[in-house]
Amino acid sequence: MSLLVTGSIAIDTVKTPYGVSENCIGGSAVYFCMAASFFSPVRLVGAVGSDCPFDWAKVFVGRNIDLTGIEVRENSKTFRWVGSYSDNMDSRSTDYIELNVLAEEPPTVPAVFKDSKFVFLANTAPNLQLKLLNQIDRPIFVAADTMDFWIEGHPEDLKTLLKKINCLIVNEDEARLLAKEYNLIRAAKKILDIGTDVVIIKKGESGSLLCNADGDKFVLPAYPATEVKDPTGAGDSFAGGLMGYLAQNNKTDFASLKKAIAYGTVVASFTIADFSLDGLTCIDRADIDDRFETLRKLISF
Amino acid sequence: MSLLVTGSIAIDTVKTPYGVSENCIGGSAVYFCMAASFFSPVRLVGAVGSDCPFDWAKVFVGRNIDLTGIEVRENSKTFRWVGSYSDNMDSRSTDYIELNVLAEEPPTVPAVFKDSKFVFLANTAPNLQLKLLNQIDRPIFVAADTMDFWIEGHPEDLKTLLKKINCLIVNEDEARLLAKEYNLIRAAKKILDIGTDVVIIKKGESGSLLCNADGDKFVLPAYPATEVKDPTGAGDSFAGGLMGYLAQNNKTDFASLKKAIAYGTVVASFTIADFSLDGLTCIDRADIDDRFETLRKLISF
Repeated sequence: MSLLVTGSIAIDTVKTPYGVSENCIGGSAVYFCMAASFFSPVRLVGAVGSDCPFDWAKVFVGRNIDLTGIEVRENSKTFRWVGSYSDNMDSRSTDYIELNVLAEEPPTVPAVFKDSKFVFLANTAPNLQLKLLNQIDRPIFVAADTMDFWIEGHPEDLKTLLKKINCLIVNEDEARLLAKEYNLIRAAKKILDIGTDVVIIKKGESGSLLCNADGDKFVLPAYPATEVKDPTGAGDSFAGGLMGYLAQNNKTDFASLKKAIAYGTVVASFTIADFSLDGLTCIDRADIDDRFETLRKLISF
Repeated sequence: MSLLVTGSIAIDTVKTPYGVSENCIGGSAVYFCMAASFFSPVRLVGAVGSDCPFDWAKVFVGRNIDLTGIEVRENSKTFRWVGSYSDNMDSRSTDYIELNVLAEEPPTVPAVFKDSKFVFLANTAPNLQLKLLNQIDRPIFVAADTMDFWIEGHPEDLKTLLKKINCLIVNEDEARLLAKEYNLIRAAKKILDIGTDVVIIKKGESGSLLCNADGDKFVLPAYPATEVKDPTGAGDSFAGGLMGYLAQNNKTDFASLKKAIAYGTVVASFTIADFSLDGLTCIDRADIDDRFETLRKLISF
């Protein structure tokens, strides 16, 4: 089933204890696409400036990623992010940021993408996420990400968005901030009360939590990785694997959501093993399926 | 199969956002006993002073806990701990401590306890843990806890202990400190290289990790509790449920260890729902088994 993602395309410079990756490919939509493409064709909607050095056809070669939705803006510049991670990679700081195209109007969803059934709205202003969503005719399952800046600065826009989407995917701090509740089960309940059907809370090294409006719950540990070189893109890879699996199977029932989260967890574990997209470009679907089964075995008792 | 615990018996005063529990029953051996008693008879070895206000026969009424090993020292005082938890209960501070009997010679293991087969050495000086262990004839499975104070201050004693025990149960910070390694999988491997057969790392809200010398691994999330009033005793209840299950079944294979960790997780989730022992005194084995199955369902995909 068709899967569309709207989000950032970035030129990243990332410093971790394992090294520095300068001017590498990044951005939420890019990580999402790469992760989702193991499962399903993906439609990418995003904007870059004329300075963007990447040849997307080459970046995504051999993958079923439709690039029709990439807008190259001649008089603009690509989003740039410079970040560094602490020694243990349990915290990161933004050292430099240039919003560039991200501060402009969002890209237009191409006419041929309007029939998309699965949609992921990566983090941006909630009113822009709504504008993007409104361009899709009749989606089946819409998931969105957000961040503290919008939760604190644009709570009403975010509430409007929550009523329009099926699933919110946020990290634990964002969930707590949005719900004004520390306990994550109760926080999820409060977010579900605002509007969406499903809340997925990412807890990094501690795994993830899924709650729906019917009161179903699912908890999953993170894959116990020994190789972590660059955590950038872990969350977007998680969302990509998750949405890719749902779109592949055209199902959104609770059992499918649980498997989707396990796939998201596995894909993210490959992402963080190397810089930029390198952790994903060197694997195939069989590697993901193997680790999926390993994860199942690791938690069975 | 016989299960013996050596550890502290305390008069606790605990402050959490839910209230204050003054001069209540606490201590590692007490939480351990109560938790383990749902599964197996337990033999308690610990010392108190003449000031100890608790009638242990009443505290443990209806439970198969052998109190022969409680020493009441006429000229001494009971261990006292006053602690308070942060608003979110994700950190705690010790506001006041009186070691009292804990600063004296450890209690003697009664002759009738020397044939104990499962042994838990709760946190104390590693050389005292060894002294206690040496009093047991031929144990089958010995687990021990430790803390930063001994890891930093008495590393050689701790290494000697690790070679003598089958299982170390520590929290994540302790594991990192002991292994000098942040990644927990690698930290567990380093600890196993020092000596013990099995390492269990408690990660609080993030669950737990089990690794053995054969390279087997198991990860389990914490039970997603909505009721947390007092986290005191969670770790000792976890160990109690875990060791109680192993002793009940007289098995220490990897499959049994995984189930034991799940039982420990479940028992700890009841402990933290109320102050002191109140979370455990109001439940029975059926409640534990119900939640054990709920936990299994919560993580299945």
